[in-house]
Amino acid sequence: MKTEVLDAGELTRFDEEVDVLVVGLGAAGAAAALGAVEAGATTLVAERAGGGGGTSAMSGGVIYLGGGTALQKACGFEDSPEEMLKYLQASIGAGRDDRKLELYCDGTVEHFDWLVAQGIPYKSTFYYGQSGEPPTDDGLVWSGSENVHPFRDLAKPAPRGHVAAVPGAAGHKVMSSLCTAVEASPARTVFNASCTALYRERDGAITGARLEVFGEPRTVRARGGIVIATGGFVLNDEMLDAYRPEARKCSMRVAADGDDGSGIRLGMEAGAGTRHLDKVSVSLPVTQPWDLKAGLLVNAQGQRFINEDAYYGRLGDYALLRQDGRCWLIVDDGFFVQPEYGFEVVAVGETPAELGRELGLAEGALESTIELFNHHARRGEDPLFGKREPYLRPLETPPFAAIDCTTEHARYAVFTLGGLATDVDGRVLDPEGRVLAGLYAAGRSTSGLAVGGYSSGLSLGDGTFFGRRAGRTAATRARR
Amino acid sequence: MKTEVLDAGELTRFDEEVDVLVVGLGAAGAAAALGAVEAGATTLVAERAGGGGGTSAMSGGVIYLGGGTALQKACGFEDSPEEMLKYLQASIGAGRDDRKLELYCDGTVEHFDWLVAQGIPYKSTFYYGQSGEPPTDDGLVWSGSENVHPFRDLAKPAPRGHVAAVPGAAGHKVMSSLCTAVEASPARTVFNASCTALYRERDGAITGARLEVFGEPRTVRARGGIVIATGGFVLNDEMLDAYRPEARKCSMRVAADGDDGSGIRLGMEAGAGTRHLDKVSVSLPVTQPWDLKAGLLVNAQGQRFINEDAYYGRLGDYALLRQDGRCWLIVDDGFFVQPEYGFEVVAVGETPAELGRELGLAEGALESTIELFNHHARRGEDPLFGKREPYLRPLETPPFAAIDCTTEHARYAVFTLGGLATDVDGRVLDPEGRVLAGLYAAGRSTSGLAVGGYSSGLSLGDGTFFGRRAGRTAATRARR
Repeated sequence: MKTEVLDAGELTRFDEEVDVLVVGLGAAGAAAALGAVEAGATTLVAERAGGGGGTSAMSGGVIYLGGGTALQKACGFEDSPEEMLKYLQASIGAGRDDRKLELYCDGTVEHFDWLVAQGIPYKSTFYYGQSGEPPTDDGLVWSGSENVHPFRDLAKPAPRGHVAAVPGAAGHKVMSSLCTAVEASPARTVFNASCTALYRERDGAITGARLEVFGEPRTVRARGGIVIATGGFVLNDEMLDAYRPEARKCSMRVAADGDDGSGIRLGMEAGAGTRHLDKVSVSLPVTQPWDLKAGLLVNAQGQRFINEDAYYGRLGDYALLRQDGRCWLIVDDGFFVQPEYGFEVVAVGETPAELGRELGLAEGALESTIELFNHHARRGEDPLFGKREPYLRPLETPPFAAIDCTTEHARYAVFTLGGLATDVDGRVLDPEGRVLAGLYAAGRSTSGLAVGGYSSGLSLGDGTFFGRRAGRTAATRARR
Repeated sequence: MKTEVLDAGELTRFDEEVDVLVVGLGAAGAAAALGAVEAGATTLVAERAGGGGGTSAMSGGVIYLGGGTALQKACGFEDSPEEMLKYLQASIGAGRDDRKLELYCDGTVEHFDWLVAQGIPYKSTFYYGQSGEPPTDDGLVWSGSENVHPFRDLAKPAPRGHVAAVPGAAGHKVMSSLCTAVEASPARTVFNASCTALYRERDGAITGARLEVFGEPRTVRARGGIVIATGGFVLNDEMLDAYRPEARKCSMRVAADGDDGSGIRLGMEAGAGTRHLDKVSVSLPVTQPWDLKAGLLVNAQGQRFINEDAYYGRLGDYALLRQDGRCWLIVDDGFFVQPEYGFEVVAVGETPAELGRELGLAEGALESTIELFNHHARRGEDPLFGKREPYLRPLETPPFAAIDCTTEHARYAVFTLGGLATDVDGRVLDPEGRVLAGLYAAGRSTSGLAVGGYSSGLSLGDGTFFGRRAGRTAATRARR
């Protein structure tokens, strides 16, 4: 979709006028609309598809919340904003936005209550053994690497994946609840409506947009501003080539149709800066069920490269970006179970040497890796990578097998994390960090909480939390 | 330096008028000015510093050229544009711009002759044993990974580092020659002149700039266009934080004062797209002299992670970006020599086990790595990483030692590779890939030939080759 920025001075009148225009009705857009109407703004939401939901509706529906939410307490887990912050800072690492993280951790307990108030149902039960998308309707899961090396020593672990009460992927439940809340609110929605242009005043301020509703142009003046909430760009091959070409090797792009970066590009054309367009979340869900964490993930040299009990988002990062997507999970007959997501055994051997030969690894390499791991595992240790019990079992029960984790054959699930530069109130910033008046953004069309070291639920958490703030800020500006 | 984009309509007249304004007098700016005057344009070059040279003058002065240049032939090496292209495509990898690479490889023989015609002196002798900056005044060196695994099997290797005839770092010779050529040309130069604003017409075209010459503003209309040639942004901490935070760990930023990204940001403000702002060249020159390539570069797990005979630009990439800058070069007394650039021995042991303990590595890890390497090296093989003779010597002569290659203590030399999006003629492109009329760019303020997998000399090669083209294109536009 081609988009443009037009001179507002050349327009004699807008077809309609509102306080806040929200573009996109995924999690971020819904939260922005709700935030705007809570602040008293007349609000219009334009969604390109025939209905609300976006990529959020297709997601696992996990929301990363903590600090001692009602749900965490009901499940018997202690948590605090401080420990949550420490974990997120350590796992996300360099390039993170500490101001956003601090605000998020401080506001997360209230934010959970707000989500419940919007109608998202949660069951106060905890599920152990599968990250992200429990097969049950349990409400709380581990959705990151909180309780594994090195994070367990850096912050007190607590599970923070809050999952709507529906078995399996719960994104549709989250979004049907939020869309219902938007419908019940004074906000108006218009579907099949693409935003194809922004109108800019001579001072640079954005004052309106052109929608194409079923192909018919319609101009909207937004007194407070326009909130871009159009999602990421993982479906845009050109943008991936430009910013993170490795992502194209991934077999699964986590996205609804809209994730073509149109909102990000429209913002850039209007003069916005961007952050972290090269950053992606890559999941390699090979250790599902969790018994498979006892396996050894080895690279093309037969070396381990990560503690296999780490969250699958971390496994994917390391496998794709540090090992070029060439690795295998080595298992033995003592703990092998069928992987959940269709990963395949690609080689079998009666000995590590035979398995190594089958895989085409250098002679002695896999043997040496297994021998060293077993030596330490027998003492209940993994001094190389810090994997923990109960996944520290010497591999010694033949046959040995290799589960294919190469990008050619395995499920690598990717989506983009970078986007428009925004401040903590959702204001879009130019490349010099100055506010671009009238333009706001939230969700995966921005660079938000996670710019690496992904834990599941951070996108829905980020989008809803900062979406609310963006809607509120735009509403306030309408009353200047 | 704060910059802005202003409305050309608000200016009644420009102080002066030229065909082409070049901003920055490093290698790219000099070539752009020479390209513009060759095409008959009245040309003004504005340089922020008190004289020309920029980062190019502080560089090693290697220019990556090949395909059978006069210098390669004089030294007895065969090469072809096809083999050069194959090597560059493989080493640069994903995200590369094949159209730029193809043009460059096709034009490289002529480009060398042009550089010689500008007055850069070359001695027709080959130097073996030190990459990048030979201590002698020899003219040709290996300045990449052409003759090591895996590239030697992908393209016929040839040395392509062309070094001006002066002992040691030769960048000042390259730049004094090019600056002399610019002085001798009809182009005018103005020093202590910062470009602080661009003027934009209502249709988006860039038609002029504001310089501040010794602090005094002076507006210049450029009929053909403005060529941004202001270098990269490795000195801009905020931009590094935003695009490649790991770079800040490097002890040495390869830059003259000007590399603060001002030109890139000015272009972005004017509506330019960018490419690969996250990409950097990282050098770890620990294997100088080359005898040290017999060492084993091991990570925090005591594992090897690369063929140590690879070019130091490749070592740095892998060490910083894949091993978090935590590694050591393990040597034995059989081949140890003092490293050239002040790398320090940080631990010594009579056995691999003792050395591993000294380094705090997991018990058995270093022993296992050395044992596996030695086992294969005795047969003249390195099936894990493909290191080659003469660097395949079993480590068995005590004492063993570790040379510190952690970012805290070693020399990591970094500069940025990403920048403004340009086409092959130097036209700046917007985020949608459309030409931004009147704006051109070259050199490290653009995303050019190398967007990863750096070989020395690609920046000077890229900047001079595409600088010439940008100057020529802008000159042609002046005659519309």
